[in-house]
Amino acid sequence: MVKVAIVGATGYTGLELIRILVNHPVAEVVMVTSESYKGQKISHVFPGLKGLCELELVDFDADKVADCAEVAFVCLPHGASMEKSQKLYARGMRVVDLSGDFRFKNAETYEKWYKIEHLFKNLLKEAAFGLPELFRDEIVRTRLVANPGCYATSVILALYPLVSEGIISSYPVVADCKSGVTGAGRKPSQRLHYPECNESFMAYSVSGHRHNPEMEEVLLRATGIETQILFIPHLIPMNRGILSTLYVNIDSGLRWEDIYEVYAKYYENEPFVRLYSEGELPTTKDVRGTNYCDIGWVVREDRKKLVVVSAIDNLVKGASGQAVQNMNVMLEMDETAGLIGAPFWV
Amino acid sequence: MVKVAIVGATGYTGLELIRILVNHPVAEVVMVTSESYKGQKISHVFPGLKGLCELELVDFDADKVADCAEVAFVCLPHGASMEKSQKLYARGMRVVDLSGDFRFKNAETYEKWYKIEHLFKNLLKEAAFGLPELFRDEIVRTRLVANPGCYATSVILALYPLVSEGIISSYPVVADCKSGVTGAGRKPSQRLHYPECNESFMAYSVSGHRHNPEMEEVLLRATGIETQILFIPHLIPMNRGILSTLYVNIDSGLRWEDIYEVYAKYYENEPFVRLYSEGELPTTKDVRGTNYCDIGWVVREDRKKLVVVSAIDNLVKGASGQAVQNMNVMLEMDETAGLIGAPFWV
Amino acid sequence: MVKVAIVGATGYTGLELIRILVNHPVAEVVMVTSESYKGQKISHVFPGLKGLCELELVDFDADKVADCAEVAFVCLPHGASMEKSQKLYARGMRVVDLSGDFRFKNAETYEKWYKIEHLFKNLLKEAAFGLPELFRDEIVRTRLVANPGCYATSVILALYPLVSEGIISSYPVVADCKSGVTGAGRKPSQRLHYPECNESFMAYSVSGHRHNPEMEEVLLRATGIETQILFIPHLIPMNRGILSTLYVNIDSGLRWEDIYEVYAKYYENEPFVRLYSEGELPTTKDVRGTNYCDIGWVVREDRKKLVVVSAIDNLVKGASGQAVQNMNVMLEMDETAGLIGAPFWV
Amino acid sequence: MVKVAIVGATGYTGLELIRILVNHPVAEVVMVTSESYKGQKISHVFPGLKGLCELELVDFDADKVADCAEVAFVCLPHGASMEKSQKLYARGMRVVDLSGDFRFKNAETYEKWYKIEHLFKNLLKEAAFGLPELFRDEIVRTRLVANPGCYATSVILALYPLVSEGIISSYPVVADCKSGVTGAGRKPSQRLHYPECNESFMAYSVSGHRHNPEMEEVLLRATGIETQILFIPHLIPMNRGILSTLYVNIDSGLRWEDIYEVYAKYYENEPFVRLYSEGELPTTKDVRGTNYCDIGWVVREDRKKLVVVSAIDNLVKGASGQAVQNMNVMLEMDETAGLIGAPFWV
Repeated sequence: MVKVAIVGATGYTGLELIRILVNHPVAEVVMVTSESYKGQKISHVFPGLKGLCELELVDFDADKVADCAEVAFVCLPHGASMEKSQKLYARGMRVVDLSGDFRFKNAETYEKWYKIEHLFKNLLKEAAFGLPELFRDEIVRTRLVANPGCYATSVILALYPLVSEGIISSYPVVADCKSGVTGAGRKPSQRLHYPECNESFMAYSVSGHRHNPEMEEVLLRATGIETQILFIPHLIPMNRGILSTLYVNIDSGLRWEDIYEVYAKYYENEPFVRLYSEGELPTTKDVRGTNYCDIGWVVREDRKKLVVVSAIDNLVKGASGQAVQNMNVMLEMDETAGLIGAPFWV
Repeated sequence: MVKVAIVGATGYTGLELIRILVNHPVAEVVMVTSESYKGQKISHVFPGLKGLCELELVDFDADKVADCAEVAFVCLPHGASMEKSQKLYARGMRVVDLSGDFRFKNAETYEKWYKIEHLFKNLLKEAAFGLPELFRDEIVRTRLVANPGCYATSVILALYPLVSEGIISSYPVVADCKSGVTGAGRKPSQRLHYPECNESFMAYSVSGHRHNPEMEEVLLRATGIETQILFIPHLIPMNRGILSTLYVNIDSGLRWEDIYEVYAKYYENEPFVRLYSEGELPTTKDVRGTNYCDIGWVVREDRKKLVVVSAIDNLVKGASGQAVQNMNVMLEMDETAGLIGAPFWV
Repeated sequence: MVKVAIVGATGYTGLELIRILVNHPVAEVVMVTSESYKGQKISHVFPGLKGLCELELVDFDADKVADCAEVAFVCLPHGASMEKSQKLYARGMRVVDLSGDFRFKNAETYEKWYKIEHLFKNLLKEAAFGLPELFRDEIVRTRLVANPGCYATSVILALYPLVSEGIISSYPVVADCKSGVTGAGRKPSQRLHYPECNESFMAYSVSGHRHNPEMEEVLLRATGIETQILFIPHLIPMNRGILSTLYVNIDSGLRWEDIYEVYAKYYENEPFVRLYSEGELPTTKDVRGTNYCDIGWVVREDRKKLVVVSAIDNLVKGASGQAVQNMNVMLEMDETAGLIGAPFWV
Repeated sequence: MVKVAIVGATGYTGLELIRILVNHPVAEVVMVTSESYKGQKISHVFPGLKGLCELELVDFDADKVADCAEVAFVCLPHGASMEKSQKLYARGMRVVDLSGDFRFKNAETYEKWYKIEHLFKNLLKEAAFGLPELFRDEIVRTRLVANPGCYATSVILALYPLVSEGIISSYPVVADCKSGVTGAGRKPSQRLHYPECNESFMAYSVSGHRHNPEMEEVLLRATGIETQILFIPHLIPMNRGILSTLYVNIDSGLRWEDIYEVYAKYYENEPFVRLYSEGELPTTKDVRGTNYCDIGWVVREDRKKLVVVSAIDNLVKGASGQAVQNMNVMLEMDETAGLIGAPFWV
């Protein structure tokens, strides 16, 4: 068995890792850390885990983590994450960092958008961007994976083949994205207080959001092509799921099948990207609880736009599922281990 | 008192009219019709109306309607609506038709999008498009008002000043719109079955939606300028509210204040359009239960786009509230009568 | 116009008072206080109030409140409330205190359940319990009203006629009550964080809840009869509404009509209590946004139980609506002023 | 591999069976039937199943089902179910019938509550009631299992040890139960239309519900003791989960630990019943997506009541998960195969 530690186990991505790993055939969670709940059994904090995970939540101690586990998932806020990931990496562990701390090659971009000094700039080049569909080869060769942002996953997977194949006639692409509330994390706040989220819909970060430069830097790195994306996130009154509606400028004459060929070329053999048939578009329901990214599209010849819809579960393909996928790739196991399952449709 | 009949009183727009008119200082509902529930008291069908509206639901009979009321709100599905509206109009009543049947001047556009023959083409020129902010003068002169579509209201109000003042550098405008479920009506269907809507988010009518030509025809009529809109609707798992996010191509150099001036020029004295301050954007919560259309925007100089967010309650400004506003205008009463109120915020 | 101050205007009951008073024919809000938001316009904190309430939120100062208003609604947490209410009362104002601070005649019961010393015990006898259906005469004679708890309102109104008329064969009555989340207030917490409330249902305070002694003390005071209630609250994933299901022990032989007579005797002329017909039971939807308490029942002869269902909107009849009703009574105005309206049904 | 057919695969229990069986180590779905969708691939009807289940939905034909599968899950409405289950049973299959058709030993009780003639009365004695915690021995010996009702599962599991051990001092037990909307099935109706369920809470079937006699008959059969339950169901605006609050009459002097001993005696080794610690009560969230029944309780000495709270996922332990558990028992496999997993907590 592969022994796994979850650093920051009581946030939503930590909990989701436990949910996934309970059924992983090869990995086993052996340590869970938490500052706020240390000393308590995780099954006391979350009674739903009774009989499934009876570990005690402990304070983070890099030596102890490295002693008992070979893989660490670091599920901490950006800033707090980089130091702990670095320490575990320095102790020879394989680390999947779920924060934004190692996603950029360019430290300046990071510092501009996250307003924090990066303390381990030299590690940035070691870190693979954990989107296996684009960077599988880098992931397999490293011990430090920067798990992608949830919105970024949904937009990059939808755009990558289109950018690569020169389908986009001009930029920016408009990425109007909508996310369930778990994407905003587990910390209570006025905006996320039940009665204020519920029965309301809003746009946010309209002046600029951190996942926007992440999308552009990654696409550039993967394709060599400079893109421009206008990414606007919205908050949906529901728990899980991201639906991204992408408005792509195209030349006249492209048909649905032409786009299909482009996507199929890149994703035909990908276990976690599903292409929809003509006339069919994914909803967040179709991927809820799964590691899939589902993609459908309509060519609006009348407006010279290609409208692409991509759907993921922000906590699975957008976070913890993808983190497990990255672990599987790093360890050269079956990439799908622990990750195949039908959607939690209702 | 102005005596009012509601034709099709048991759908959501009919019910919302009752809710509004219960507190209207001058109008009084004297007749409610329904095919499915005829013979029952409306307070039996909807016990929440006990003591507030004790009318019996009756079958539609144009003569009887015209005998007892001077204004009729026709809340029927398109196709079914036109005949009844015509009959009431022919009997001298003032009619607000909430369907799509009289919204187009061009019958062909109607027939193409609604796939129904229009039986009263000559009435199309009599009908005013019931958006008082654009067509107040026409509304006051007619006895037949075509109440606008909900999405159309939200998009047209946000675009009208920008189109008029030449702010838009090129078309199409992308209108990514999101609506609560009451917008789809009261008839049960698989897609609107609670467990299937709940906790899911989807795009629909991506190949083309009827409100798209409505937006363009109306903007052309109001401004003389041909526009192109790419309108994509989405379904939000909540009851009420439309949030439209509009992506408008603009030239460099425009600042927030420039846009403010444009909007203020048209809406400064409008009682039901509220402009948001810099840094502030409306949410559907801010207008829930009200007749307001709230508008905010951000200039994204980095992408040469103006992002406009407009919010309405689809059942109020998007339907029944606007219908009452139209009645108020037609009757040359205080346009806001019965329509001022704070949002049902939580 | 009656000038009104709202102390603690940015919680849910404060906001709901504003929503109601915007349409009150005689009262006018002239002052709104808030510790956390002082110095800001309330329409800046809640943009949905733009154009409806443009007051600046100010710090509490008893003299200033008393200078500008004649009625104060004190919407503060218990403990914090008593001092401010006392100060305003001492300055001659009429005060409606929405907290639990003045609901008990017996200070010991208060101190036991609220775990706070009561600093104004002598005021307890001045305070009327603000349930006009039971204590209208006391309310009209006082200047200090203790607005009832939301659960207490829903249970007491359902039980009062049954207790008075000796319908209950033995105690305890089981009161299984369910409330929407606004009942828990506006302060963010883990339990009320959107993703944790949403799609979940729970019981709470099963060992004992403060509204339980309130129900029993008030029923005793109103009827002279000692009762015993086993009150268990539950949290519903929705914003508003309380549904109470009451299980009452009865003797054999009672029919639906017998119970109707009992209720009608007490509530026939009450403007805000609606009795349901045989075969009909209220839902929270039927009273949403209204000041009604709706009551229906079924006699389960097979189990020797009377099952009563009562529904209120916890923020209206359960808090701010009832507070306005109390003001109307105190000022000997039309008791229903500003409070008649159809439910916000969808 | 065990080959499995799902008869009526497009309702919620059928879909949930597919979700569970996709990860079952030994069973494999080989046939899915549907009247309404026959001829279509199930992954076309539910695109979320793409790549996971690509079977074509076929019309029911008992011979064909028996030819290709050894176990059938019959997920049809009562009445429609009995004939198909009988045919499959007659062809030698093992059958789990998820309807109410074989739950009663007494055909008259069935006919009284379901208002349908039972056509296979002789089969009633063959059918085991599929609650393995009570009837494991019967299930292992039969080929026909009547899968319990969802409410019945939740109430019986909570009461069985209390009844058996004579903890209940008098009847009736009040069972105030609350269910998510999937419990009402997939067929659209006015009451289950999204905007009408959403943000509302209601009691229903207050005059009597079919699961009430099921609870009493089964407890009698399991314990030899006549009970009386007053079961009142309520509808929660959420998809999944049943929370039952049970009010049990007890004598003075019982402590939490005494009750614990009673439950532990029966459930200590049960893999799918979890007992909560003192001070802790389950919520529906804790069991969402799992096959657990979680039970907690509080002794209210002051009211001489034991308050028990039990939580299940109505689609898992309340339907499809329990059906798989029954299959596992019948086939003498590991009873937990395919059924262990952490809750879908958010």
